[in-house]
Amino acid sequence: MGDLQTVGKSLPRVDALDKVTGRAQYTCDIDLPGMLHAKVLRSAHAHARVLAVDTSAAEKAPGVKAVITRDDMPRDVPLDELQRELFAVPPYSLATDTARYTGEEIAAVAADDELAAEEALRLVRVEYEELPAVTDPVEAMKPGAPRIHADAEDNVQYRGATEYGDVEKGFAEADRIFEETYRTQLVHPATLDRTACIASYDRAGDLTFYENSIDPYKQSRYLPAILGIAPSKLRIVQKCNGSNFGALQGNLTPYVITALLAKKAGRPVRLVYTREEEFVNAGPRQLAVTTLRTGVKADGTITARDIRIVTNAGAYGYLGPAMITSGFTPCAGLYRCPNVRFEGLCVYTNTAVTSPYRSFGIVPAAFAMESMMNLIAEELGIDPVDLRLKNATRLGDVTVVGQEIGSCGLPECIEKTVDHIGWKQKRGKLPPNRGVGMAVGMFDSEVRNAPFSGSVALVKVLEDGAVKVISGEFEWGQGSRTVLSQIAAEELGVPLERVLFSELDTAVVPYALGPYGGGPVTMRGGNAVRLAAADARRQLFEVAAGMLAARPDDLEIGGQKIWVSGGPARALTLAEVAHHAKYILAEEISGRGHFEPDTVMRDRETFYGNYSSGYTFTAQTVEVEVDPETGKVKVLDIATAIDLGKAINPMAAEGQNEGCVGQELGPVLLEGIVYDGAGRVVNPNLIDYRLPTSLDTPPITGFLIESHEPNGPYGAKACGQVSNIPIAAALASAIFDAVGVRIKEQPITPERILRALEEKEAGEHATA
Amino acid sequence: MGDLQTVGKSLPRVDALDKVTGRAQYTCDIDLPGMLHAKVLRSAHAHARVLAVDTSAAEKAPGVKAVITRDDMPRDVPLDELQRELFAVPPYSLATDTARYTGEEIAAVAADDELAAEEALRLVRVEYEELPAVTDPVEAMKPGAPRIHADAEDNVQYRGATEYGDVEKGFAEADRIFEETYRTQLVHPATLDRTACIASYDRAGDLTFYENSIDPYKQSRYLPAILGIAPSKLRIVQKCNGSNFGALQGNLTPYVITALLAKKAGRPVRLVYTREEEFVNAGPRQLAVTTLRTGVKADGTITARDIRIVTNAGAYGYLGPAMITSGFTPCAGLYRCPNVRFEGLCVYTNTAVTSPYRSFGIVPAAFAMESMMNLIAEELGIDPVDLRLKNATRLGDVTVVGQEIGSCGLPECIEKTVDHIGWKQKRGKLPPNRGVGMAVGMFDSEVRNAPFSGSVALVKVLEDGAVKVISGEFEWGQGSRTVLSQIAAEELGVPLERVLFSELDTAVVPYALGPYGGGPVTMRGGNAVRLAAADARRQLFEVAAGMLAARPDDLEIGGQKIWVSGGPARALTLAEVAHHAKYILAEEISGRGHFEPDTVMRDRETFYGNYSSGYTFTAQTVEVEVDPETGKVKVLDIATAIDLGKAINPMAAEGQNEGCVGQELGPVLLEGIVYDGAGRVVNPNLIDYRLPTSLDTPPITGFLIESHEPNGPYGAKACGQVSNIPIAAALASAIFDAVGVRIKEQPITPERILRALEEKEAGEHATA
Repeated sequence: MGDLQTVGKSLPRVDALDKVTGRAQYTCDIDLPGMLHAKVLRSAHAHARVLAVDTSAAEKAPGVKAVITRDDMPRDVPLDELQRELFAVPPYSLATDTARYTGEEIAAVAADDELAAEEALRLVRVEYEELPAVTDPVEAMKPGAPRIHADAEDNVQYRGATEYGDVEKGFAEADRIFEETYRTQLVHPATLDRTACIASYDRAGDLTFYENSIDPYKQSRYLPAILGIAPSKLRIVQKCNGSNFGALQGNLTPYVITALLAKKAGRPVRLVYTREEEFVNAGPRQLAVTTLRTGVKADGTITARDIRIVTNAGAYGYLGPAMITSGFTPCAGLYRCPNVRFEGLCVYTNTAVTSPYRSFGIVPAAFAMESMMNLIAEELGIDPVDLRLKNATRLGDVTVVGQEIGSCGLPECIEKTVDHIGWKQKRGKLPPNRGVGMAVGMFDSEVRNAPFSGSVALVKVLEDGAVKVISGEFEWGQGSRTVLSQIAAEELGVPLERVLFSELDTAVVPYALGPYGGGPVTMRGGNAVRLAAADARRQLFEVAAGMLAARPDDLEIGGQKIWVSGGPARALTLAEVAHHAKYILAEEISGRGHFEPDTVMRDRETFYGNYSSGYTFTAQTVEVEVDPETGKVKVLDIATAIDLGKAINPMAAEGQNEGCVGQELGPVLLEGIVYDGAGRVVNPNLIDYRLPTSLDTPPITGFLIESHEPNGPYGAKACGQVSNIPIAAALASAIFDAVGVRIKEQPITPERILRALEEKEAGEHATA
Repeated sequence: MGDLQTVGKSLPRVDALDKVTGRAQYTCDIDLPGMLHAKVLRSAHAHARVLAVDTSAAEKAPGVKAVITRDDMPRDVPLDELQRELFAVPPYSLATDTARYTGEEIAAVAADDELAAEEALRLVRVEYEELPAVTDPVEAMKPGAPRIHADAEDNVQYRGATEYGDVEKGFAEADRIFEETYRTQLVHPATLDRTACIASYDRAGDLTFYENSIDPYKQSRYLPAILGIAPSKLRIVQKCNGSNFGALQGNLTPYVITALLAKKAGRPVRLVYTREEEFVNAGPRQLAVTTLRTGVKADGTITARDIRIVTNAGAYGYLGPAMITSGFTPCAGLYRCPNVRFEGLCVYTNTAVTSPYRSFGIVPAAFAMESMMNLIAEELGIDPVDLRLKNATRLGDVTVVGQEIGSCGLPECIEKTVDHIGWKQKRGKLPPNRGVGMAVGMFDSEVRNAPFSGSVALVKVLEDGAVKVISGEFEWGQGSRTVLSQIAAEELGVPLERVLFSELDTAVVPYALGPYGGGPVTMRGGNAVRLAAADARRQLFEVAAGMLAARPDDLEIGGQKIWVSGGPARALTLAEVAHHAKYILAEEISGRGHFEPDTVMRDRETFYGNYSSGYTFTAQTVEVEVDPETGKVKVLDIATAIDLGKAINPMAAEGQNEGCVGQELGPVLLEGIVYDGAGRVVNPNLIDYRLPTSLDTPPITGFLIESHEPNGPYGAKACGQVSNIPIAAALASAIFDAVGVRIKEQPITPERILRALEEKEAGEHATA
C-alpha cells in the first residue's frame, strides 16, 4: 500500500466548500409551495394525568390550518417482531392519558407561519391532574416512589445481569478490594442544527420527509405502520445535517406529528425545534450511577470485578437495554480479568427520553472504571501507566466477554501521550496545585446489533468520468462522505474532486442499518464502498477491453485513464469508457458492494460475543492547575492518542480525535441538565447551560496510532468516538495529583472541588 | 400462453385515476420557491438580418429579473462525432445574425409573472433588414430563390438517392406506366399540453429541468455541452405529459433559453408556450411533394417503381435525413417489386423546424403510393384488394430494402375490413355520390437508429410486495406505463394495481434511446421489462429458497406468493420475501433487463437493412357520401385493422388503432398550417386551424389482428402508429368511387373537390 494516491492524505472535506459558502442545503432552507409551520404544545408538568384537551379556540385562530391531539394519534400500531427485536418500540405518539415528563407532546398546530402557530398554542386548554414526579433513577427505585409506568415495578425498565469466571474466588484471592460509586449527569448534545423536518404528501398520497435526522432507515421501517401507509409510499430525504451526536435518535414523535398535521391540513408542514425544545425534548445523554468493586493483588493484578450501573432511561425507555450493553462490554473487555460480575439497571424517570450520545453507554462507566484504576495505582504505589500496561487487553486476546482483538495500539497510545506530557518527570513532582493525570479507553469500531449489520454501497462512473458514491451511511458532520469518497477515488484512480456523493434519499439509496453502534462509517461503509468501487472498476475494464481489443486482466487504471499494461500511449479516459458504456452499450457502470463483518450479536443474557470487527483504543494524559481558593481548574495541556488502525484522512481524524476531547471537556467540567423539584429543566438555554467556548479549550495535542486492523479498509478502524472516554478520569486524576482530592461526580465544578478540599481539610484536622 | 393472467387483458390505464382526478402532476402544476416566468420575443419576419437587439428598456421594466439575447448564446458548441452521427445537430440557439422564420427566437425575458415578462418583451427593440423569403420547398429549389443557409445550394439540406434492381428494365417490361404527383401539407401536432419546462439551478450549480418533453435522454446528451456544465450535473425530470405526437422533438431551444434565464436571474424559471407559439414554433409535420412512376403488367404485377420525395425541413433541417429514410423504406418494402429507384430531397424553407409527427416520414409518401395503387387498379380493371394481395409483401419475405418479415397479418387485415364494409357488394354499386375505398399500410415496429437501439429496464420488488418498474421508455399518453406494468405484473404474478412506475428522472432511470422510430415501447421496452421482471423473480426465488429451505428451481410464483411445488400451504408472500431480503440480507430485489434487437442500421447510402425487429401492417376500408353541390365529404363508415402481433392490452390497442385514424381525419379533410406571402402563419389558433371534433368523427370499427411476432414480448408488435398511414388514400379512393374525381392534394377540402368536379365536367364537355 505504499503507492496509495488518495487514501491516507489530509484532503479538505468534500462538503467544506458548500458549507462555508452557504450553498449546503439544510432542512430549514427548504420552502415548499403552500408550506405550513408547526408548533407543539408540551406538558407543563413532569407527571400528570391529561384529563381534557380543548382545541376549539385554537382551531379558529387566524392562520391555523390544522390542530392535532391524542385523538388523532395512531393506536395499537402493529410493529413486527423483528422491529421489536432490533430496536424495542420507539416513542412516536403525543401523550395519551398521562404526561410523563415536562415537555412531552400534548397537541400540535400547523399555521401559515410560526407566530400564528405559537399564538394558537396559547388557546389550547389542557386540564391536568398532577401526579408526584421523580427525576433521579436512584430515587425512582426506592419503595414508595411515584410509579411512572404500570408495568415497571420499582420503575425498572430493564435489568441485565451476568457473571463470568468466579467472582467470589477472585475477591478471595485479592490482596486489596476497592469499592467506590461514581456519578455522571444528563448532558445536552448541543447540536449546531436543531431538529427539523418537513412532511409533504403528494397528490397520490405518497409521503416525503425532508429532515436532518440520522434515522431515515429506521423511520422507513417504522413510520409506514404508524402512519398507516404502504412502505413503498414513504420516502425520506436527509438534508444537510449540522451535527448530531445521537440527538433524538429513534424518537419518531416529531415526524409523526408533522406528517399528521400535513395530512390533516392537506399542505406540506415544517417543524423546527426551538433551542429550548432541544433541551427538554431532543434527548440528553443518560446519567449513570456506577458502583465498582475491584479486587487486586499487591503487584497490581486484577483478580475480580463487580460492576453495577444504574442509569435513567427517561420517561420512555427506548434505548435503555442497548445503553446497558454498550456500557458494560467495553468496560469488561479493556482489562484482562476473568472474574467479572455485572448488573445493569435502566430506570424510568420523569425526564426526557435519552439519546445515544457519542460513545454511547461507555462514557459514564469509563469514568468510574478509570478513576478506580488511578485510585488503585495510588493506593498500591504503582505508576498508573504500569498498572494499565500490566492488566490491559492486548493484540490477539479474546476478552472475557468475547471481543477478539485483531489490532491494538494501546501501548503506543500510552507511550505517545505520557512522553508528550512528560509524565515521568512531572507525576508527583510538580509545584503545589499542579498535577498530571492519565487514563485509557476502548470502544467498538462498529457494532452488530441486527441480523444484517453490514453496509451496502453503489459506486457509479458517469459519462463524464465523474464517480458517484451511493451509500446509506450518514453524514452528520463527522466527515463520512469525505472518507468514503477518498476510498472510491483510490480504487478508481481519480482525484477526490471527481467524486460525487448521492444525497441520502430512501427512494434511491440502498438500505443501510444506520448509525447504530460505533459510527460504522469507516469500517462497514468503507469496506462496502471499496468493494463497490472494485466492482465498478471490473465493469470499466470489461468495456475498455472491448474498445481496446484487449483482455480485461491486462488493463491498468490510474489518473482517470485505463490502458493496456505497457501501452499507456493508447489510454482511454474514464469518461470515454463510461460514455461508450452508456451510449453505445446502454450499460451503466454501477458497482455494488455488500459488506458484512464476521461478527455475532451479543448474547442477550450474558452479553458475550465478538460483536465488532475491530476495537478502537485511546490514551490521554493531561496537566492541570487548580486554584485552591476558587476550586477552578485550568487545563494546561492535553495529549490524546487514538489507535484508529489507519488514518484514511489524517486531517479529518485529527479533528475527530481532538474535537472529541474538546467536546467532552464540557460535560467533565461545566455542563449538566438540571431538573428542579417539580421536574422542570431549569437551564434550557445556552446561557444557563454552559458549553465550553474556544476560549475554554486548552491546547490539545493529538496522536494517530496506525495499528492496521485486518478487518478494516486499508487497515482502518473507527475514529469518531472513543476519544471522549478517558478524559474525565484523566482530569480527575490530575486534580488529585494537584490538590489531593478525588472527585467522583461530574461535572467537576469549582464548587465540588472546594467542597472536597474542605472535607479533606476537615479529615486531616480530625486525623491530626 | 393460455394461462396469461394480466397480459392480453383489457385493463384500465394505470394512470387513468390520477388523470381524471387531477392528481397527475404536469409541469405547469409545479411552483418552485422564487420561480420566475419566461416569455420569448420572436422574429416578426420570415427572413431578415438581425442588425441590433436593444434590451436596455426591457431590463429596467417592473418585475424583470433577466433578459437574454444572442449575446448570451453559447457559440461553437463542441458536439462529438457520435452525436452528429446519431441525431445531426439540433436547434438550440436564439437567432444570431439572421432570423430564418417568423417566430424564431430573438430574445427572452424572465420576470416575476407572465404579464410582466410580456410587457417587457414590448420594450425590446429589434432592428431588422428584411430579406426575401420562401416557404414552399419546390419554390425554394428553383434558381433565384432566396438562399436560406450559405452552405445549402438550391436550399437542399439533404439528398438521398438509391436504386435497386434494374429500374429501366422493369419499366421496359411493363404494360402500363403510371406517373403522378401528390402533395401534403404542414400539420400541427395539436397536443393537449403545451410545451412547458422549468429550469432550476441549485446552490452547487447542478441544473434540474422539469418538463413535458419526450427528449430527456437526448437533452441529457446535448445540453451539458451547450450549457457548459458537466453531464453529471444535469438532471431532467419528465413530468406528466399531455400527449406529444412528436412535437418539438429534438428542438432544444426552449430548454436552453430557460436555463440561461435561470442562470442569469439566479432563480428557477418556467417557460410555457402559448397556443400561438405552439403553432409557429413547436414543429409541424413536414409537407411532402411525392412523384411516383410505376410500371405494371396487365395482370397487375408491379415491374418498376420510381419514387421521388421533396420535403421541407423548415428553416433548420434537424430531422431531414431521418424523415427521408423513414418515408422511403416502408414505402419500398410494402410491395414485392425488385426494381426501385428513389430520390429524396429535404429542402430548407423559411418556416418552423418540423417534427417527427406520428408515423414519421411515411404518411405523405403512403398517400401517394396507395392512391396510385388505387389508380392502377381502376385503370387495369382489377379490384384494388386483389391488386394488393397480388403484390404485397408476405410472411417470410426479405424485402427489396432488406426488411425481414417475421410476422404479417396483412391479408387478414384486408379481409376483416372489406368484409365489415361490404366491399364486394358496394364497390361501384352504390347509389350516386356514395363510394367505398380502401388502402393498406406498413410501418416499423421499432427502428434501429443508433449503435444501441434497445431498451434497459429495472424491476424492483419493494418490502411491501409492490413491484416498481424503472424504465426510460416514455409515457406521453400512449399507455406505455400500462403495457409495461402489465408485463411486469404477468412475470411476477401480481395484480396490475401492485405495480408502480418510476417517474422518468435521468438521475435514476437507466439510459434510454428515446422515442426514435416507431414508438419502441412495446417491443423494445416490453422485452426489457420482461427480462428485468424475470431477473427479479430469480432473485426472489433465491431469497425464498433460503427461507423455505428449498431449491430455487423447485419454487413457483403467483397470486403475490411463492411456494415449493406441491406445497402451497407453506407459501410466502412476496412482501415477506422482499422484506427479508431488505432487512435481513440487505439485498435489494432489483432485476435488470437489457434488450437489444437483432437488427442493423440502414445503410446510409442505400438505405438497405433489417432495421426493425418487427413490421406492423394495417388495412382500412371506408364508405363516404359526397355532396356534389358543396363538395362536402361525409364519412359514413371506417373499418381499420391493425396487425399488432399480440394485444397486451386490447382496450388500449383499440384506442390506439381507432384514435390514430380519428386523428388523421383532420389532416386528410380539414387541417393545414397556412403561410401567407410574407411567411407568417395565418391560422395559428384553434379557431382558424380546424381540428376535427368528436362530432366530425364518423363511426370507426377497429380490428386487432394477432399474427404473433417472434421478436416481440408475448408476440407483440407496436400499435401506436401505422393506423394513420392508409386513411388518406382510402378516403380519396372512396371519393373517386362516389363522384369520379381523384384528389391528389391534402387536405381534401370541399373546395378542392368542387374544383375537381368542375374540371372533370369541363373535361367531359371537352370530350363530348
